[in-house]
Amino acid sequence: MTDYRRLRVALLGAGAVGSQVAALLRRHGDELADRAGAALDLVGIGVRNPDAPREVDLPQELFTTDAEHLILGADIVIELIGGIEPAREYLLQALNSGADVVTANKALLATHGPEIFEAADQVGASVYYEAAAAGAIPIIRPLRDSLAGDRVQRIMGIVNGTTNYILDRMDHEGSEFEDVLADAQALGYAEADPTADIEGYDAAQKAAILASLAFHTAVPLDAVHREGITSIDKAMMDSARHAGYVIKLLAVCERLTGRDGSPESISVRVYPALIPREHPLASVHGANNAVFVQAEAAGNLMFYGAGAGGVQTASAVLGDVVSAARRHIAGGVGVGESTRANLPVSPIDFVETRYQVTLDVSDRPGVLASVAGILSDGDVSIATVEQTPSGTGEDPRTARLVIGTHIAREKNLADTVERLGRSDVVERVVSVLRVEGD
Amino acid sequence: MTDYRRLRVALLGAGAVGSQVAALLRRHGDELADRAGAALDLVGIGVRNPDAPREVDLPQELFTTDAEHLILGADIVIELIGGIEPAREYLLQALNSGADVVTANKALLATHGPEIFEAADQVGASVYYEAAAAGAIPIIRPLRDSLAGDRVQRIMGIVNGTTNYILDRMDHEGSEFEDVLADAQALGYAEADPTADIEGYDAAQKAAILASLAFHTAVPLDAVHREGITSIDKAMMDSARHAGYVIKLLAVCERLTGRDGSPESISVRVYPALIPREHPLASVHGANNAVFVQAEAAGNLMFYGAGAGGVQTASAVLGDVVSAARRHIAGGVGVGESTRANLPVSPIDFVETRYQVTLDVSDRPGVLASVAGILSDGDVSIATVEQTPSGTGEDPRTARLVIGTHIAREKNLADTVERLGRSDVVERVVSVLRVEGD
Repeated sequence: MTDYRRLRVALLGAGAVGSQVAALLRRHGDELADRAGAALDLVGIGVRNPDAPREVDLPQELFTTDAEHLILGADIVIELIGGIEPAREYLLQALNSGADVVTANKALLATHGPEIFEAADQVGASVYYEAAAAGAIPIIRPLRDSLAGDRVQRIMGIVNGTTNYILDRMDHEGSEFEDVLADAQALGYAEADPTADIEGYDAAQKAAILASLAFHTAVPLDAVHREGITSIDKAMMDSARHAGYVIKLLAVCERLTGRDGSPESISVRVYPALIPREHPLASVHGANNAVFVQAEAAGNLMFYGAGAGGVQTASAVLGDVVSAARRHIAGGVGVGESTRANLPVSPIDFVETRYQVTLDVSDRPGVLASVAGILSDGDVSIATVEQTPSGTGEDPRTARLVIGTHIAREKNLADTVERLGRSDVVERVVSVLRVEGD
Repeated sequence: MTDYRRLRVALLGAGAVGSQVAALLRRHGDELADRAGAALDLVGIGVRNPDAPREVDLPQELFTTDAEHLILGADIVIELIGGIEPAREYLLQALNSGADVVTANKALLATHGPEIFEAADQVGASVYYEAAAAGAIPIIRPLRDSLAGDRVQRIMGIVNGTTNYILDRMDHEGSEFEDVLADAQALGYAEADPTADIEGYDAAQKAAILASLAFHTAVPLDAVHREGITSIDKAMMDSARHAGYVIKLLAVCERLTGRDGSPESISVRVYPALIPREHPLASVHGANNAVFVQAEAAGNLMFYGAGAGGVQTASAVLGDVVSAARRHIAGGVGVGESTRANLPVSPIDFVETRYQVTLDVSDRPGVLASVAGILSDGDVSIATVEQTPSGTGEDPRTARLVIGTHIAREKNLADTVERLGRSDVVERVVSVLRVEGD
């Protein structure tokens, strides 16, 4: 074997991903050295409890509770602890001591990204985070580098495996949300506390990271509009299927063209949406992820793969470790994040998309005219209407109206739906869903 | 605008891709400067005829026939001439004069890659070639960087848009190859001389590049087994559809596990193959490309997008230009190609896959037994058989036998097919197709 320069790699965290990273680093050490041009010596693993049971066998002497000491002597620090603190503190220490850092910590990057990247710039180090956005799917480098010469118009991502698993099963089995969630928890696809997934918090963090990269703008997490999937039920799934759609939790990052002299802005939002069955994202099944990118020159691109899983995510982390090692050997300063476009993030009210509005209405003459009038007054144009005959729904005296709109502004739509809800002829606003990708 | 360091960019070639690159460089100059951290000054465009008509309007004073002079003063050289010479000579000159280079030249990289990369290593420059493998699809960085910590087991790529367009139309319309090819030529999807596409030469070049990256091995073009699609006819398409398959021209790059102490090797091959209709590659329609990657840790990944087109390919080229500029600013030496794994490339004879063999046989007792005996003698195990009743085919005295095999070694299969062809009971070997992706 070639006599390589040796780089000291410190690992923080030995959970599902960390233990796989450690195992693969050791198992494929010679191969990785050949690729990196440097030997990658795993010098220690910082954990809270060195005696905790691990998913893979690792030498006990690697474990330490003294993360700060571990960091001080490292060329590359891999942070897989998750959460904000002490992960943030450790990453800043690592950068300040001259190490390049690799992290899969989406929560940290979505909330403290600018601070971390600024610290890296100060010392000329690099931050690698391929695993932070869509698990094993290489999406960071394509956005950061391959598309750096293009203008991304729009990203639609299925970036949370748990919610895709749940929605996909609801679609296939015709089951209710609660039943599939319970089963997903039993099978390990959803956590005991599923809030982060089903309420869209996880997807929102990833959306902030993807939008920051795609639009060269630091997108703060609280600028991301977020809705979860807990309101999606069997009836909505059936109705979507009937209309040729499937419901997916989407992270949408969009460039909004300025009109009438107003500047360009972006919109970043996470919500369940209808997408046409023939759209490539519609065939992303189970816990898989996919990111669909529309760019001015490149056209439509899609990236597909496993969005989570210990060993899958470890692949992305190790790719970053090799990149960090190559940079270390090559010299020069790290390439910082490009956020100079600094586009404003528009609130959800300004977003324009199509909608599907489902109403239960009184089944008597003139109702459709009343409903159509309210929509028209609200500047919402009707594209399709389907009325289910009365007597087929839950209440025989009501008819169900499924209205597909043309492109409308969110604020107009929301105001209109409120007026519909207050109208005499509308018994109930059953659901309002955005339509994306058509 | 920030007062950036200015980098001198020289463009060689102003065809479909080059003219778009020049136009986008000029149109988005400020934005690209913000992203690159350097102003990208297009200092000249080297062409054979400065007065030739171009697809986009560009200032006449940019054009020059003196490519060598242009190269000498450049920080970044973009080579979009294509072909081997003078592209090779220009790239070597550029590297030797200290420029980083960007190229979309798959023919050059597939044949002279090691020479180019060696020259870059010598001077610490970098070679960027995202556009050389699958047009606008970011596949080079994912393989080179994102998956650098993983072990790629297999790549199956639809990497030639022309052949995918032809096969997709044959599949949808039930048309014959020659008719669709003529139409594709009329529509501009195929060239007047379509040999490079339909005989698989273009796909073989891309396969060599992808395999080199995936397996960290310099794969020479002549080690790539290559078959084109000219023998595919309507009957084969129909038969494939009937059996639940679709025929695609695939570039397959595969790691072959060493057995009985023999070392690992790789196989790189291009041929039309049957893939199951439910495989993600089966739904790649028209002139699109897609690359399906199976890696040990990451699992299954797919990258999808436009495989060709001037403006689409320009996106990939400009991403490389921004990367090259960032590296120039960051300092340090370029990261060279990783080819230290240096795995041997196995000849096609050693490949193992499944096959579909279609035979016209005499319609008399004992024939199936004879055929089965020949297969068994050749160590080819039968998975499925379907016999079409006699009288339905072209010749009423013959029956058609479609045999699906279990995994067999190419050499055994080829020998067996030869014996079948010489057998009394076989009237004609209609077709032999590999089955991939199931």
